[in-house]
Amino acid sequence: MPRESGTKRAILDAALELAAANGISGTTMDDVAERAGVAKGSLYYNFSAKDKLFETLLLEGVGALTQCLRTARSGLEGWTAIESMVRALLELLSENRALAKLMAAEILRTDRTWQHSLHLLRQEALAEFVEPIRQTGGWNAVDAGGPDRLTLIAGSVFGATLMGALDWLVFDPERPVEDVASSVLYALSGRLNT
Amino acid sequence: MPRESGTKRAILDAALELAAANGISGTTMDDVAERAGVAKGSLYYNFSAKDKLFETLLLEGVGALTQCLRTARSGLEGWTAIESMVRALLELLSENRALAKLMAAEILRTDRTWQHSLHLLRQEALAEFVEPIRQTGGWNAVDAGGPDRLTLIAGSVFGATLMGALDWLVFDPERPVEDVASSVLYALSGRLNT
Repeated sequence: MPRESGTKRAILDAALELAAANGISGTTMDDVAERAGVAKGSLYYNFSAKDKLFETLLLEGVGALTQCLRTARSGLEGWTAIESMVRALLELLSENRALAKLMAAEILRTDRTWQHSLHLLRQEALAEFVEPIRQTGGWNAVDAGGPDRLTLIAGSVFGATLMGALDWLVFDPERPVEDVASSVLYALSGRLNT
Repeated sequence: MPRESGTKRAILDAALELAAANGISGTTMDDVAERAGVAKGSLYYNFSAKDKLFETLLLEGVGALTQCLRTARSGLEGWTAIESMVRALLELLSENRALAKLMAAEILRTDRTWQHSLHLLRQEALAEFVEPIRQTGGWNAVDAGGPDRLTLIAGSVFGATLMGALDWLVFDPERPVEDVASSVLYALSGRLNT
């Protein structure tokens, strides 16, 4: 996800590598400056505090995820859109493993300064799943509840995908993405309910 | 989950409360002794190191979760068993919110001393979902793959439930458990694939 160039990008990449290995608490601004190969003055010129640096990193990650889901469902509807989004999400996470682990650890924390903005962006990512769920015949056939219900269902679809992805990337990384995608889609396809 | 009594229990409860608020890295043995109201000598007599203390806490939590799933599916098969397990898991997590958050943060980490034993126990919990998935008509109708595929599917079912639960407990705790259960089960029921 190269958006910033040069120094800023080098700092964000270094922070991500360090946090994936040692957690955010275990990563200091000194470590980041050293890994990125920049002077401390330059680091603080770009990010005034460690919180700002990790907030930028996480918001950038969730933004890229939302964009990936939006692209994947473009021109598709209902279940076909969901299938395409699950595959695209798994591919994105496998190409950005450090970020995937960091997001999984952070996405539900409530003790961070960036909690509010991360929550808003997270809702944006879930909203991408809400639209195709609303388009399915199953949703239209029953009066299944209001928009809150749609968001809960979207959260479950996202959770099924995220947990499948993390299992894979942490414990079985050599497995082809299609194996994982077809397992997640199996769980969501209705074949359990037979 | 009261298994140990007296001092040991008080230490584990104090460690859980502190870690839920400040993370494991942000919790010291001094903090735990103070919160539990025990002398440091007594703390170290029961748990020789912070790692041992949190390993005990997490393994106890995953063990209780496995037991809960086993009880929930007892006497049931296939989809009916899965429905019962999803409901039971959501209730367990809602009654043990601090532990639920801690487990969600720890269950996929690979940099902890307790990683190996937690991974083994996690597989035991997933195995409880494997059996009912194998019993469904959908699994028997197709040659869907070997035991690895079953574990991946079980991981997705577990992930759908866990993410639904955490969303609920973190952002919308007043909502009744049945709303959440029916949303997770909606995602797994096949109504998306219509």
